[in-house]
Amino acid sequence: MSRPSFQDQLKSRWHAGNSLVCVGLDPDPERFPEQFDQNNSGITAFCKAIVDATAQFACTFKPQIAHFAARGAESALEEIIDHIHVNHPGIPVILDAKRGDIGSTAQHYAAEAFERYDADAVTVNPFLGRDSVQPFLDVKDRGVIILCRTSNPGGAELQARDIDGQPMYLNLAARIANEWNEHGNCALVVGATWPEELAQVRNTVGDMPLLVPGVGAQGGSAKDVVTSGQNADGSGLMINSSRGILYASGDSDFASAAATAARDLRDEINLHRNR
Amino acid sequence: MSRPSFQDQLKSRWHAGNSLVCVGLDPDPERFPEQFDQNNSGITAFCKAIVDATAQFACTFKPQIAHFAARGAESALEEIIDHIHVNHPGIPVILDAKRGDIGSTAQHYAAEAFERYDADAVTVNPFLGRDSVQPFLDVKDRGVIILCRTSNPGGAELQARDIDGQPMYLNLAARIANEWNEHGNCALVVGATWPEELAQVRNTVGDMPLLVPGVGAQGGSAKDVVTSGQNADGSGLMINSSRGILYASGDSDFASAAATAARDLRDEINLHRNR
Repeated sequence: MSRPSFQDQLKSRWHAGNSLVCVGLDPDPERFPEQFDQNNSGITAFCKAIVDATAQFACTFKPQIAHFAARGAESALEEIIDHIHVNHPGIPVILDAKRGDIGSTAQHYAAEAFERYDADAVTVNPFLGRDSVQPFLDVKDRGVIILCRTSNPGGAELQARDIDGQPMYLNLAARIANEWNEHGNCALVVGATWPEELAQVRNTVGDMPLLVPGVGAQGGSAKDVVTSGQNADGSGLMINSSRGILYASGDSDFASAAATAARDLRDEINLHRNR
Repeated sequence: MSRPSFQDQLKSRWHAGNSLVCVGLDPDPERFPEQFDQNNSGITAFCKAIVDATAQFACTFKPQIAHFAARGAESALEEIIDHIHVNHPGIPVILDAKRGDIGSTAQHYAAEAFERYDADAVTVNPFLGRDSVQPFLDVKDRGVIILCRTSNPGGAELQARDIDGQPMYLNLAARIANEWNEHGNCALVVGATWPEELAQVRNTVGDMPLLVPGVGAQGGSAKDVVTSGQNADGSGLMINSSRGILYASGDSDFASAAATAARDLRDEINLHRNR
């Protein structure tokens, strides 16, 4: 509990760690190499091996909670996050949970993310408005990463609708930057599949960190994301890859293949960073 | 797994069961009578006692998952839902989870709700668009209860913004009724705190079931909800009360007090139902 704040850890990883890569932990036991059991201990062992292989190339780790919850593997998730804190201190953990509920319930979700799982940051859904996010915002040293413009094909259905003459995602980004971010602990999710919209969001929110899913399997380009979304100092982005790293090989060389995939993504990103 | 569909169970409870009351299970161990331990077995025992005391007055039970997840009490939640299916067959269980994520992850959340917890219905968040809800919609016999106009003070911040000349919640309600509801398994969350908006939603979605939180502790009136939201046959609503029932008494008479509170709410609602 005496770790630096999410934002401070992130800045250190961006600059001293020289990486904008977020390694997403989405364990699908059917895709594990055969040396792993398809149960909770297999999930734990596989994810720990991925973490250890990729840590030097990562700015953050992002376990996706549904992959654990669907199987009753909460204890595996606890163990993996603890492993990261103990063995790779300074690399912050984002719990990808996309929670959203009214205030009295949101307090319980904040406790789930920040106390039970001891995550450094959590993803949340803004559909219920600021009061539903406030219990997360009140935890000043942890990050609150709010959905803004998601990477999926249907993301535009609500998020790109016109509100007061601008798309909702920009209206929301401005409101978060100007009003919700009192403690400087906000960040936004903006998909790699919409680089022009990523650039608009960057222009709206100053130096706020952006979590960018959708590179690789979903079709987004790392170059486009960096050139559209980085800050003047070549930071400001957490560019996520999950399946492209986790399942780079399905054989016994999975760990070295994951490390290579993470390193290659880091290097490709770094080619385009402002220096 | 051979239960009737969510919609069929609900209709039976509305008419033969004569109740529109949804009993919300939001366990807060600090508020338990002193006979219960403040741990997982206490949560299980308290919730089972509430279920048994109120079942005859309920159309549905709605456990709120954050209250379990914050404490690592997933096994208690599993046990409580199983208890309802075994001891009170015909009363459907709504898992209040408000999940929302891109399709490949949403499949895992659907598995969490419908396989792991074996819920009859689940609440979901529409912010990511239809493709994010599709894995839930595809499970034809289970209910998908989509956030539309929530009961909290900040609910209007996004949900009531103008889209194409109408508030977003109405635009969304129409789209769900006309496009998303191909299998007839959709329902909507509309807060009791906005009866005029509830009436607008009812006029938009035909006979679609509406889950209505916000009566009691949040200030909504049961009479206003029934007169604004019911169908021509006096059904169509799941009017939720959580704290008003669970904590009607903090002493050893908690179960009879909960039963009285649920019966009183049912009776107050039934006074205003079309017959």
